[in-house]
Amino acid sequence: MGDSGDNNYNNNNSSNKTEEETRVSEEVSRVVESVKLLHDSAASFISTSSREEDALRQRARALNSTIRTLRPSIANLDSKHSDKLEEELCRASYILNEGDTAAFIPNKFTGRFLRMFLGPINVRATRKDVKLKVKEEYNSFRDRTAFLFLFFPSLLLVLRSWIWSGCLPALPVQLYQAWLLFLYTGLALRENILRVNGSDIRPWWIYHHYFAMAMALISLTWEIEREPNCAQKQKGVQLFLQWAIMQGVAMLLQNRYQRQRLYTRIAMGKARIMDVVWGETAGVEGQLWLLAPILFILQGFEAYVGMLLLKAALVGVISEWQVITSGILLIIMAVGNFLNTVQILGAKSRFKAKMKKSKSKPELNLGSHTL
Amino acid sequence: MGDSGDNNYNNNNSSNKTEEETRVSEEVSRVVESVKLLHDSAASFISTSSREEDALRQRARALNSTIRTLRPSIANLDSKHSDKLEEELCRASYILNEGDTAAFIPNKFTGRFLRMFLGPINVRATRKDVKLKVKEEYNSFRDRTAFLFLFFPSLLLVLRSWIWSGCLPALPVQLYQAWLLFLYTGLALRENILRVNGSDIRPWWIYHHYFAMAMALISLTWEIEREPNCAQKQKGVQLFLQWAIMQGVAMLLQNRYQRQRLYTRIAMGKARIMDVVWGETAGVEGQLWLLAPILFILQGFEAYVGMLLLKAALVGVISEWQVITSGILLIIMAVGNFLNTVQILGAKSRFKAKMKKSKSKPELNLGSHTL
Repeated sequence: MGDSGDNNYNNNNSSNKTEEETRVSEEVSRVVESVKLLHDSAASFISTSSREEDALRQRARALNSTIRTLRPSIANLDSKHSDKLEEELCRASYILNEGDTAAFIPNKFTGRFLRMFLGPINVRATRKDVKLKVKEEYNSFRDRTAFLFLFFPSLLLVLRSWIWSGCLPALPVQLYQAWLLFLYTGLALRENILRVNGSDIRPWWIYHHYFAMAMALISLTWEIEREPNCAQKQKGVQLFLQWAIMQGVAMLLQNRYQRQRLYTRIAMGKARIMDVVWGETAGVEGQLWLLAPILFILQGFEAYVGMLLLKAALVGVISEWQVITSGILLIIMAVGNFLNTVQILGAKSRFKAKMKKSKSKPELNLGSHTL
Repeated sequence: MGDSGDNNYNNNNSSNKTEEETRVSEEVSRVVESVKLLHDSAASFISTSSREEDALRQRARALNSTIRTLRPSIANLDSKHSDKLEEELCRASYILNEGDTAAFIPNKFTGRFLRMFLGPINVRATRKDVKLKVKEEYNSFRDRTAFLFLFFPSLLLVLRSWIWSGCLPALPVQLYQAWLLFLYTGLALRENILRVNGSDIRPWWIYHHYFAMAMALISLTWEIEREPNCAQKQKGVQLFLQWAIMQGVAMLLQNRYQRQRLYTRIAMGKARIMDVVWGETAGVEGQLWLLAPILFILQGFEAYVGMLLLKAALVGVISEWQVITSGILLIIMAVGNFLNTVQILGAKSRFKAKMKKSKSKPELNLGSHTL
């Protein structure tokens, strides 16, 4: 009896097992089948979409070259209508290069800096919302860093007079310099990515961050602590920290300005895609004229710090090559920043004048709502 | 007469002008129309393809979770068939995660390092050929840098004994250290991109490059030139340069090995997608056993340099914090490298044993050519 019961149990158990096995085995084949189907759909999706992409790319390229050849013919026309035609062509070119088609236009910008760090990976977004997200994140990165840009040098200067009795120790300054190097590398990479994605960021601002990277790297090799006479020898570092605090304030203001420009762009882009380029600076004109004097003062101070460093090196108080190089870099950056700010302000006021002129010609306000 | 001739000429001229104007104006409207059409196609392509992408993504995610839930049921089966079922499931999972569907599976790897430097941009390639191009470029980047890795420290050591009479000047060493920082940052970024694209690179090698970045940064703040006794004080730098030369040789060998592995992968991937994972190390087993001892010697030497630096700091020959930190970092890297190399060799020999075992079971060789 005991034996037969055991047998029964075993039989039941093994038939249960077989059932379970069949069930699992069926499920596995179902999964294998689904994976194959999904794999085929994915493969066909990838090949179809890359073919369609290539076709769109070809059409965009052809249109762009037609626009390029039409421009001189319009300029030759010399009639009242030529203004109107130029305007229309300009708008068409704008849609082509800034709208959804922008992703299919070959990039003029090669991005050697990105290739150097990242290799040949594509960092271009196809969807407009992704592009705006990238720009938005860039702005919030700038916001976060602007606060640190204000905080770190302030802390160093406060601790210098409170605790370190006028003499900065090497390690905190070097940590700050390493952070600067990381920050400028991150900014340069992000700005290159923005350019690849069609941002109109001026090349100078990117070059400016290359120079700043070089300067942070050089300052890391610079011996900070030098008793005796450290107060005199650290004059350059101290001036640099003061300049950095002012730079932090300017960055915060600049960010506010840029962010408002972006929001205007998004809002107007949603309303009418063509109006973006004409209206983007409309609401923030006032802030720019608050920002400009601060930027000029900063640039002057930057050049002044550069001069002081050069003077210190030439008089012989500090004779390291780092001092001379940093001085030269600061002066280059100050001059470049000044020239670019002046150019931007000039372009903005020319643009404003054009806006006023075109408002007096009602026949120019056409086409924008036909899309 | 003269007057009438002039009039005629003017009339002709203005009618020519009108013709030209009509032609240009027509062409402009044609361009505007084409741009609108292209814009619509681009917009619809982007929205359609992102919808399809989302659908594929959802299907891939569902299948992946089904596979995860099936695994324990198979393990519970405890029969002869369970091995076969597990094998089938494993292959399905491999196709899903490595084939064309891989682009639609949400990344487990978040890539904080990439986000820190680049922001939220997508660096994932959809097409397999692009992924392989990225890996190929990574290997050629390693090739180029391996030569420089051999060349720079050799040059420094040769010049040290020929020209600089035993005492390295600061600038060339700092240039070399800055190059190391750039190199390790580039490698870490590229390896993170490879991981995002589904490479099976071990996390340790990426951490290793983070440590190396830290070390390059620290060594930049390290004061090199210190007369008198520079021969004694530069002992650490000298050992580091010797280690770097050996590292260059090992990198060249490693690159040869990796490259052959990649070529095998491409060739076999073209033939049968499933065989890739089983066959990828087939042809290069011999080279690995040449490479391993060299790697172990290097790791030993790395730890030895680290110990010497620590000893120098503890005895008090050099008392800077950089020396202690560099020593600790070198020892961490040596130990980590050693453990990971041992693990890889262990995994490879277990894998080889499994290969031999599965070759005796012909029923396992199924499914791979049905795709």
